[in-house]
Amino acid sequence: MLENIHSPRDLDKLSYDQLEQLAKEIREVMITTVSENGGHLASNLGVVELTMALHRVFRMPEDKIVFDVGHQSYVHKLITGRYNQFSSLRSYGGISGFPKRSESEYDCFETGHASTAISAALGLARARDFRKEKYQVLAVVGDGALTGGMCYEALNDAGNSQTRMIVILNDNEMSIAPNVGALSNYLTQLRISGGWQSAKSRIRHVKRIPLIGQPLYTMIHGMKKLLRTAVVKDTGNGFFEALGFEYYGPINGHDQRSMEKAFREARKTKGPCVIHVLTKKGYGYDQAEDRPETFHGTPPFYIETGDRIDVPNKPSWGHVMADTLARMCEKDARIIALTAAMKLGTGLDHFAERYPGRLIDVGIAEEHAATMAAGLAAGGMRPYFAVYASFFQRCYDQMIHDVSMQHLPVVFLLDRSGVGGEDGQTHHGLFDFAETLPVPGMTVLAPSCCRELVSMLEWTLKQDGPCVIRYAKSGDELSEISIPKQFTAGKWDIITEKGNVMLFAVGSMVPKALKVREILAEKGIPACVVNCSTVKPLDTDFLDSIDRAASIFSMEEHMITGGFGLYLTEYCVEHQLPVPRKCFGVRDEFIQHGRHEMLIKDAGLDHEKIAGEICQIMKEEQLTWLTR
Amino acid sequence: MLENIHSPRDLDKLSYDQLEQLAKEIREVMITTVSENGGHLASNLGVVELTMALHRVFRMPEDKIVFDVGHQSYVHKLITGRYNQFSSLRSYGGISGFPKRSESEYDCFETGHASTAISAALGLARARDFRKEKYQVLAVVGDGALTGGMCYEALNDAGNSQTRMIVILNDNEMSIAPNVGALSNYLTQLRISGGWQSAKSRIRHVKRIPLIGQPLYTMIHGMKKLLRTAVVKDTGNGFFEALGFEYYGPINGHDQRSMEKAFREARKTKGPCVIHVLTKKGYGYDQAEDRPETFHGTPPFYIETGDRIDVPNKPSWGHVMADTLARMCEKDARIIALTAAMKLGTGLDHFAERYPGRLIDVGIAEEHAATMAAGLAAGGMRPYFAVYASFFQRCYDQMIHDVSMQHLPVVFLLDRSGVGGEDGQTHHGLFDFAETLPVPGMTVLAPSCCRELVSMLEWTLKQDGPCVIRYAKSGDELSEISIPKQFTAGKWDIITEKGNVMLFAVGSMVPKALKVREILAEKGIPACVVNCSTVKPLDTDFLDSIDRAASIFSMEEHMITGGFGLYLTEYCVEHQLPVPRKCFGVRDEFIQHGRHEMLIKDAGLDHEKIAGEICQIMKEEQLTWLTR
Repeated sequence: MLENIHSPRDLDKLSYDQLEQLAKEIREVMITTVSENGGHLASNLGVVELTMALHRVFRMPEDKIVFDVGHQSYVHKLITGRYNQFSSLRSYGGISGFPKRSESEYDCFETGHASTAISAALGLARARDFRKEKYQVLAVVGDGALTGGMCYEALNDAGNSQTRMIVILNDNEMSIAPNVGALSNYLTQLRISGGWQSAKSRIRHVKRIPLIGQPLYTMIHGMKKLLRTAVVKDTGNGFFEALGFEYYGPINGHDQRSMEKAFREARKTKGPCVIHVLTKKGYGYDQAEDRPETFHGTPPFYIETGDRIDVPNKPSWGHVMADTLARMCEKDARIIALTAAMKLGTGLDHFAERYPGRLIDVGIAEEHAATMAAGLAAGGMRPYFAVYASFFQRCYDQMIHDVSMQHLPVVFLLDRSGVGGEDGQTHHGLFDFAETLPVPGMTVLAPSCCRELVSMLEWTLKQDGPCVIRYAKSGDELSEISIPKQFTAGKWDIITEKGNVMLFAVGSMVPKALKVREILAEKGIPACVVNCSTVKPLDTDFLDSIDRAASIFSMEEHMITGGFGLYLTEYCVEHQLPVPRKCFGVRDEFIQHGRHEMLIKDAGLDHEKIAGEICQIMKEEQLTWLTR
Repeated sequence: MLENIHSPRDLDKLSYDQLEQLAKEIREVMITTVSENGGHLASNLGVVELTMALHRVFRMPEDKIVFDVGHQSYVHKLITGRYNQFSSLRSYGGISGFPKRSESEYDCFETGHASTAISAALGLARARDFRKEKYQVLAVVGDGALTGGMCYEALNDAGNSQTRMIVILNDNEMSIAPNVGALSNYLTQLRISGGWQSAKSRIRHVKRIPLIGQPLYTMIHGMKKLLRTAVVKDTGNGFFEALGFEYYGPINGHDQRSMEKAFREARKTKGPCVIHVLTKKGYGYDQAEDRPETFHGTPPFYIETGDRIDVPNKPSWGHVMADTLARMCEKDARIIALTAAMKLGTGLDHFAERYPGRLIDVGIAEEHAATMAAGLAAGGMRPYFAVYASFFQRCYDQMIHDVSMQHLPVVFLLDRSGVGGEDGQTHHGLFDFAETLPVPGMTVLAPSCCRELVSMLEWTLKQDGPCVIRYAKSGDELSEISIPKQFTAGKWDIITEKGNVMLFAVGSMVPKALKVREILAEKGIPACVVNCSTVKPLDTDFLDSIDRAASIFSMEEHMITGGFGLYLTEYCVEHQLPVPRKCFGVRDEFIQHGRHEMLIKDAGLDHEKIAGEICQIMKEEQLTWLTR
């Protein structure tokens, strides 16, 4: 049936029975594709009926829908003409796992980071009003994203201006990890007051009664709907009402009819309203229902068992970090680990196994996390905030204003730094040097192997200022090399034999630099590799001692602008040292999605490409010398 | 009396009559000092009784108090041993206008930007619990700051963890501008339900009745207190309760006794609580009571009239911006101006006079503002978000993730860029190039004179991508020069005669470069000045055409790291052009507070210093050539 759905309008003619069948097909397609390509599964399985109901009641693309975070837009993609491309999901050159304006007119606003949708929708709604147009604007927001302060800023603004817009609160009782925060408890109260959950389980029970079970179920089901209608437009929900929103709910997010009814009701509202929809992550696939966290973002897996196809044998940077931190905890009672709703992603689940009381999960609230960490440090603790590099962008001001200006010993552990993979442009970590190098008093570190990360973490307790350690997701080639020396902040090492072509490499580029060196050696160019594990402060003793005739190259998985290479150049120019002949890094473009290796190649950062360029430059240099 | 207050404990022995007298003295000192040094007056006049009450009930510095924003900490400074230094307020080398850990052990956490205090206090409170200590932790937060999402993130976290802490909601019904947002309306409801305001005005009325007025007032005053006690611990305040906080209030913030009673009550609370205190900005000084916005942050003024001593004759960049934008509005219905609670500061009051409906004030919510702007742009509008450069740091991720990745035509107008003045380190705008230059597709502009700003603004409508324009507060020397040519993005001009020493100057440094050139000319060094009004993209045609023997210098009011000079260097190295001999900018240190001119000198960015350094470098270069 799904292959005949070319636009949401094809849903209009379907009966509820047919919709149920379609929902089943959509789930099958998503499970199959994600089992092959990896992706976000649990959240998409949870919003099948919700997305269909939205598309049946509203008129996209005239009406605008913004998906918060956006990884739950697979159903939307499948029913807005992208069924045929769906098998290319998240692969290089294929369709994105997030909304993309370039893919479809149905994707009116791109997302990726949490808590932006209400702001974006309010902007679209205001634009509509200024232009005297009439369309509806919707934001679909998870209860997890609602822990982010931006949502509140937007609700506050919308409630005040009374701009007509609809917020669909997709409440699945968890974001990526089980949800935290006082508001979450509050939503639970609403759920209970709505009586939906208890009614649901009671009715299910009824269904099992032989013979009369099914008719009784149907009858009770009808009664429940009546009951639900009474619940709709409940008052006394302090939170949303205090913010000026009308509140409808809670509504069963797997009951197509109820949702459609509520949405039609909401269409008539003149101001802003919230529709509280209850969904279940992983709905319709037992493996995902039972393990929603595992199936939040998953690599390829076996559909039968739900087991991952490739069990990684490479070390995960996050796990090394978490295990080390736990070990340090044995001796130092000041250590506190922080996460912004990313316990699993950052590896801190390993830490929590041993020290559950020493891990604080603040919800999707990076700003608060950073300043709260500053407070912890001012109170004598040693906070370690593990956060994806791209989400670290959220606490840029707090990193400067609250942590660095007071020179507090907060350590930011930047996971997923550098070029990422299938999640694409919103999830690469390519701006962290640009964020931190200009900040006075900041120490910026990048380990080239796991042993170095361990050593760095241990070092952080010996100093008293702010510090950033950036690393990638998995160890990749890093298990192959191991820097034997103890890490010392601000000290670089030549990890090969010496040579007058010097490759200054950072973090993930150190193993690549070793391969570049091999190629160069074959071509008769003797090069050495410098492991610049401390990016700030630079090892000025090392730099001052280098041969003035050396040819320097820098290598990093970061934007060239604002990166390590330029930071190095600054010092070299100032001190009349040889300036890097070329800074290898990411050029001035946003990188898209696909396998990490493909993206690295595209960026010109694979070892063959780099070696080739260096050869070329060295040849030209020789020519210049010869012709002089 | 104030000179005998050496620590808050000296307040303990005072009677309420004496406290009233002391409050009067504190107000006098603050009015006198701020009338001479400039500073934040209205907010400090409003919290005299509140601060005294806090210090009488709580035991600082063992108990910790965090002032949100921090510019309302003058009273706190006066009664924690800084009375003798108070006349040096905000002046170079003197005490800061914000809490400073280096000044006093009573300042436990530094602030400057809004909405951080609850996060910081929660950190301190958690540190206390981990360390099994007992002290109280307080956050004093204005109702304006409560529009910032960070506050909500922190309330949500604290409400969930039920950590013992006290939030003092200092509700003066406005932040810097009259407050916006739905929550503000909600607080108004609480105020009315508390019945305080109406009671207050009725009682005042009574006082005027001759002869029996005062006794009657005293009697009613007593009754009112009873009434208030009943109001305390009111329930049904959905917002704070939904977030897990106990709520007390509202309480008259100019009634010492009531507050002390409520604070003593709050001390006993085991979890987090909010005490809602009603204060009046400017209380006790008619000029400030009548014009709280003018006396929020004020330059020196005449106490009698409240008029400013120096009426500026220099053009304000913000006003030029706002007037231009209003003029552009005449022809283009897509233009929308945005502010985050800074209508006056950004000059947008000029715009609002003509187009009130085209200005959106979102509250202290820069994150939301940026993403909402992206939504407006996606909806076909042309949003211009005017924001102080240092507060722009708050929407760093949104600028990248929501605006730039979708290449939406949002224009960020960065006011107060460069080295600021008396507000000190939290208010300088020295990171904006580092934030924006690494972002693909971003245009970064810096006008050297007001005419150029006009021309740039007009240009922004001719293009379709994100754009940043940075400028300072006032025109300073800029009125002296005027770039005659029409601005063209990406085109640089030599604005003097040519010369082989080339000064590449940005924005505020262009007039300085002209002065540097004069000094160099006197010393026989012919230099030219290049106005690099487009910082990104670089004018590569211009650069490719420069003489390979030229000596290049760059000049900017920005951190050297991440700045224009290095961005220029990146291109020069890549294309084998002469690399800047020196990049003039702010070295790797946080700049403190004082007069702008002093700070610029300290940073080595005055024209004499720069000219001297260039002379030195050129001499050394000549020597090198001669000795070759």
